[in-house]
Amino acid sequence: MTHHRTTAAALLTAGSLMALGAMAADNAVPYPTNYRSWQHVKSMVIEEGHPLYASFGGIHHLYANLEAMKGYATGKFPDGSIIAFDLLEAMRADGAVSEGARKVLGVMVKDSKRFATTGGWGFEGFGGGTANQRVVGDKAASACYACHTAQAGSDYVFSKARD
Amino acid sequence: MTHHRTTAAALLTAGSLMALGAMAADNAVPYPTNYRSWQHVKSMVIEEGHPLYASFGGIHHLYANLEAMKGYATGKFPDGSIIAFDLLEAMRADGAVSEGARKVLGVMVKDSKRFATTGGWGFEGFGGGTANQRVVGDKAASACYACHTAQAGSDYVFSKARD
Repeated sequence: MTHHRTTAAALLTAGSLMALGAMAADNAVPYPTNYRSWQHVKSMVIEEGHPLYASFGGIHHLYANLEAMKGYATGKFPDGSIIAFDLLEAMRADGAVSEGARKVLGVMVKDSKRFATTGGWGFEGFGGGTANQRVVGDKAASACYACHTAQAGSDYVFSKARD
Repeated sequence: MTHHRTTAAALLTAGSLMALGAMAADNAVPYPTNYRSWQHVKSMVIEEGHPLYASFGGIHHLYANLEAMKGYATGKFPDGSIIAFDLLEAMRADGAVSEGARKVLGVMVKDSKRFATTGGWGFEGFGGGTANQRVVGDKAASACYACHTAQAGSDYVFSKARD
């Protein structure tokens, strides 16, 4: 009986850990494999002297999947919306700014239940654009959401769609 | 009879003019209505001091339809390929370069028969991105193709696709 109890307790513990692991995996923001074929929303260059230079210096492009495009149009992003913030080195030479290597791929994914504590959005950054280089992880609340709260009126999204 | 001959001549002339009109219309490059949803290929900022500043100063984005994406991959663009060169004002302020109003939408469309004299490509520019403001018209050979011949080795296309 003792043996059985120990085994049961061990299984329970293992089961709980697996459940926690599953929860963590469920809350992981997937790498958006095909984002480069999504609609290009807008772009911007951030240079030395800009307050966000340390984090976001370079040229960035925003891409949105079809659900997110509905969000830009209506002001309310439906679950399933994904916005990709694609940051490349900006190389200045001979009167031109050209694109260089990818610095980071930022991703916002809307799931109002899973990410209820951060405005319904999951946030992740993929260093160098590499799928397994997660640079945000469990720090989304402080590293991302804290600034995005300023945009609560537009569902926590800074960018606006343009023609 | 004189009356009939005159009428026949007048009809022949009218018919010839209509044929010429139809030819001109056939060679007109259509405005690419949905290009903003095509794949974003790459971007660049051209500033004062760059040799192309007078014509192309600002921030431009290149978009390609599916046929053109095959061309970037293979080096040979199939008929039906369309590449859009979307030039916006570049507004510099506070350490950032932001997008402004659309200056011109340049378009290349591949039709190896219709545009045989300009490398198989038809060229047009739409002033302000407005469909009826054609700024190239019948001057494609001198205004566009003359420079694009430098890229004969990549089927007259300057841009390269990137990840």
